[in-house]
Amino acid sequence: MIVPRAAILSIGDELVLGTTLDTNGRTVSEALREAGLDVVEHRTVRDDRAAIAAAMRDLAASCDVLVSTGGLGPTDDDLTRDALNDLCDGGAPMVEDPQSRADLEAWFAGRGRAMAAINLRQAMRPRGARAIRNPGGTAPGLAATIGACRAWCLPGPPREMVPMFESDVLPAARPAGAPALAKCTVGTYGMGESSLAQRLGARMARDREPAVGTTASGSVVSIQVVARGPDAPRRAAEEAQACASIAAPYAFGTDGASLASALLDECRARRRTVTVAESCTGGLIGGMLTAVAGSSDCFPGGWITYSNALKTSEVGVAPEVLARHGAVSAETVAAMAAGACARAGATLGIAVSGIAGPGGAVEGKPVGTVWIAVHDASTGETRARRFEFPGPRDVVRDRAAKAALQLARWTLRGEDAPLIWERA
Amino acid sequence: MIVPRAAILSIGDELVLGTTLDTNGRTVSEALREAGLDVVEHRTVRDDRAAIAAAMRDLAASCDVLVSTGGLGPTDDDLTRDALNDLCDGGAPMVEDPQSRADLEAWFAGRGRAMAAINLRQAMRPRGARAIRNPGGTAPGLAATIGACRAWCLPGPPREMVPMFESDVLPAARPAGAPALAKCTVGTYGMGESSLAQRLGARMARDREPAVGTTASGSVVSIQVVARGPDAPRRAAEEAQACASIAAPYAFGTDGASLASALLDECRARRRTVTVAESCTGGLIGGMLTAVAGSSDCFPGGWITYSNALKTSEVGVAPEVLARHGAVSAETVAAMAAGACARAGATLGIAVSGIAGPGGAVEGKPVGTVWIAVHDASTGETRARRFEFPGPRDVVRDRAAKAALQLARWTLRGEDAPLIWERA
Repeated sequence: MIVPRAAILSIGDELVLGTTLDTNGRTVSEALREAGLDVVEHRTVRDDRAAIAAAMRDLAASCDVLVSTGGLGPTDDDLTRDALNDLCDGGAPMVEDPQSRADLEAWFAGRGRAMAAINLRQAMRPRGARAIRNPGGTAPGLAATIGACRAWCLPGPPREMVPMFESDVLPAARPAGAPALAKCTVGTYGMGESSLAQRLGARMARDREPAVGTTASGSVVSIQVVARGPDAPRRAAEEAQACASIAAPYAFGTDGASLASALLDECRARRRTVTVAESCTGGLIGGMLTAVAGSSDCFPGGWITYSNALKTSEVGVAPEVLARHGAVSAETVAAMAAGACARAGATLGIAVSGIAGPGGAVEGKPVGTVWIAVHDASTGETRARRFEFPGPRDVVRDRAAKAALQLARWTLRGEDAPLIWERA
Repeated sequence: MIVPRAAILSIGDELVLGTTLDTNGRTVSEALREAGLDVVEHRTVRDDRAAIAAAMRDLAASCDVLVSTGGLGPTDDDLTRDALNDLCDGGAPMVEDPQSRADLEAWFAGRGRAMAAINLRQAMRPRGARAIRNPGGTAPGLAATIGACRAWCLPGPPREMVPMFESDVLPAARPAGAPALAKCTVGTYGMGESSLAQRLGARMARDREPAVGTTASGSVVSIQVVARGPDAPRRAAEEAQACASIAAPYAFGTDGASLASALLDECRARRRTVTVAESCTGGLIGGMLTAVAGSSDCFPGGWITYSNALKTSEVGVAPEVLARHGAVSAETVAAMAAGACARAGATLGIAVSGIAGPGGAVEGKPVGTVWIAVHDASTGETRARRFEFPGPRDVVRDRAAKAALQLARWTLRGEDAPLIWERA
């Protein structure tokens, strides 16, 4: 089977000038690749009719499929329609598409607004092109051929583009007989990407089937498994399971699981509840837990004890502990975790206190020093661990919050391992 | 003065395949534009020697400046060096750059690691090229000319690329006699982008000097002011000030200010302290406040009162209020705000309770319904307002947290206005 070649063209001054970050290229590219196409190039050009037409001509000459996004609005700087018309109809007058016009009129009528005359431009199409309906906005897409290349022009806003791409482009662009493809992702936290790669070893060899790769984002290192061919979903899931075992206990879940959702799942399975007392993370752990819909059945809430006064009055850290050991100490976080647990009536307590920077470093406690404690009310045990997280303030805080969730998860599961950035 | 044309080439399978989102293109583009160049195109190609060389040749033919990122690592799929050599030296054998080799050896020695033989590839350069030192990694950059175009090849990791770009590329690429350029950004929250544009009116006309535009990100609508020519910084600042006045009271600050830092500045100026009682935002407001370094002098901490039990036990919401009006009500958030304020000994209290979704909607309270209260302990007044935030769970929560910060800021400043998404 010949694998069709695809290219992606993003159109817009704001993209070329760097005002807006293009994410459509990535979305379309991933989906086309999964459908079995070979994506060879992205290009981004300005709202310039000649530049758009030149890029389309150039890409169409070397590819079988071309997907463009942007430039289909109603204003003078929306020129994708005209550029496509230059290429596939020699710039001849365009025709009004009745369905597009009806959709536009219905769109404005449904919002109780009068349609401006310029919006009628959006109902125009090259004679050789087909209009694609846009349920989420005013700009219809266009489908046409440029030489031997099939081209689709879609609007720029992702929430309009994605449904049109999925319903119209993807089914048509998918090569007949392309092997089925299935993906599975395993999230891990607490080991470096190179250590993980070392553990996975030969599984990551190029051209292995299923393919295994790693990516890192927000300090979470993910294992990506892609299987192709017969029985792909089962083989992808099995390979992901094998990778997760290899990455244990750092692997926290597959496909869309977050550290927070993984912890909440462990709580739910064990009929446990979890609370937090956050100092340097200042609400981030609570924010991560409550980002998960349905978290309320395991998370009653918690405390942002940023000041020493609140650490004492709210979660019962003795003033002598603060005076003797400081707010960033094993003793303080242990007291915070146990105190929050008791006060919330929860069975698991998480506490964090540290120096997120850029200021605040003291002798023996550089910026990035964070103590994290987990208190298990079912055993009465509390364990505090010290970290030195590298990075600026926001990275230190994010890493600390995620480390706390991972340690709490391990406590429930009876697992343990050294976490990267942990200091004895 | 002729404005030089620039193009950006990003190199890497992971970028074309959509596994990684390219941000270098935007970074380089913005900086080149501010330096006075006309950026005309971005291109992204795979780790393929012929494809890289073809893109370089093509872009160099139409541009004066070409900046590439990526493909300078030590492995077989790092081919930028070879592609550049094909173009500017006909593929003749490359030479080893003594400074690059010394830097590589020092890099590994400084980390107590042996240098692998393959790393020596990174010390090679085309005979006609100049190596650019990389203080943050192992990959030196390369500078060369392709025909009449000056080309720079930089490594892909942003933390390595950006310093090299700023120290080596930017000073050399900046056209002599380019007008000085100054930027100023005004953040606004609570009005739609089109309403803001309407208020700014003729100030947003194309080709006006200073130029005024708007962009939206994370529901914050920013006004971008760009002045060029003599006295640009003063004129940009004055124009931004004028725009901020027009956008009052929605404008909360300039250049890097967040809603949280703006609120903390108001607190500091008035010797006020602020606390929070968060239900549906679950710690996000605390997280935003403590994202600001130095927030501890105005923010002692607060409560994540996710359950009704904690709303009662911690911030004193009477059980009858919850029973009669529900957790998502004016009465409940008013009691939360006043209770948190009293308990924390703060002079300003913020409370949020709502239905973030996707579940939880009840008759008369659709998903997105959020009540926000601000209690001013200096006057004893509490004001609660109702919102219907559109969007999925994360967007509803983010919008609610930001609305709460804006309302608190207005309370301190004695300002008021309707907020978008507010429902009487």
